[in-house]
Amino acid sequence: MSDDERAIRNAIQKWMAASKAGDTATVLALLADDVIFMVPGREPFGKEAFATASQGMKDVLMDGTADIREVTVLGDWAWTRVYLTVTISPPNAKPVRHAGYTLSIWRKQPDGAWVILRDANLLTASE
Amino acid sequence: MSDDERAIRNAIQKWMAASKAGDTATVLALLADDVIFMVPGREPFGKEAFATASQGMKDVLMDGTADIREVTVLGDWAWTRVYLTVTISPPNAKPVRHAGYTLSIWRKQPDGAWVILRDANLLTASE
Repeated sequence: MSDDERAIRNAIQKWMAASKAGDTATVLALLADDVIFMVPGREPFGKEAFATASQGMKDVLMDGTADIREVTVLGDWAWTRVYLTVTISPPNAKPVRHAGYTLSIWRKQPDGAWVILRDANLLTASE
Repeated sequence: MSDDERAIRNAIQKWMAASKAGDTATVLALLADDVIFMVPGREPFGKEAFATASQGMKDVLMDGTADIREVTVLGDWAWTRVYLTVTISPPNAKPVRHAGYTLSIWRKQPDGAWVILRDANLLTASE
């Protein structure tokens, strides 16, 4: 495994751990400033909208796992395919489980850190 | 616009025209042999499953438009974001309209042709 592939795999696990911990600053540091998120049924959105949504989730417990299916590195660019399961537990409400794949494009920053530049999230509600 | 960007834009329009015409051979020629399609709610699938599904759609009228929002070329690789609207009209059934975004990764073949290597399809049923 190349250093770059290892760095991207670590970034994905860091993302999951920070999401669980509600550590928005760490999650945002893994995003390019010009990131574009794509999910079914709504317009794509960027880093600011992501940050606002994360703030709104402060009181929500999140748990999940990331099963990395592919990491392909092309110089300073890469893409990943990940099977995610995410359980969201709002206060005083039933937990909701989502599962499915993501296709993400990553960019290597001048400092060597990898950040997400495009992310297509295909998760659906699951039992 | 670079020759590569133009070639990818042409390939997308060729895809749409061939899909409308039921020209499966032309559509398949725009796919890498190791293409992976991702859609919400099911496992990813490859070229053979795509071909089988296309055969099963032979009697179905398809119409649609592709609004290309981004083409980024990185040497022999590229990604695109496209807003698709697709109307499928099965025989003796009500037409169904789907709309939404795709995120696709493309590869330039040794002969200069661009083919789709990964495709995340976020379309949902729409009115």
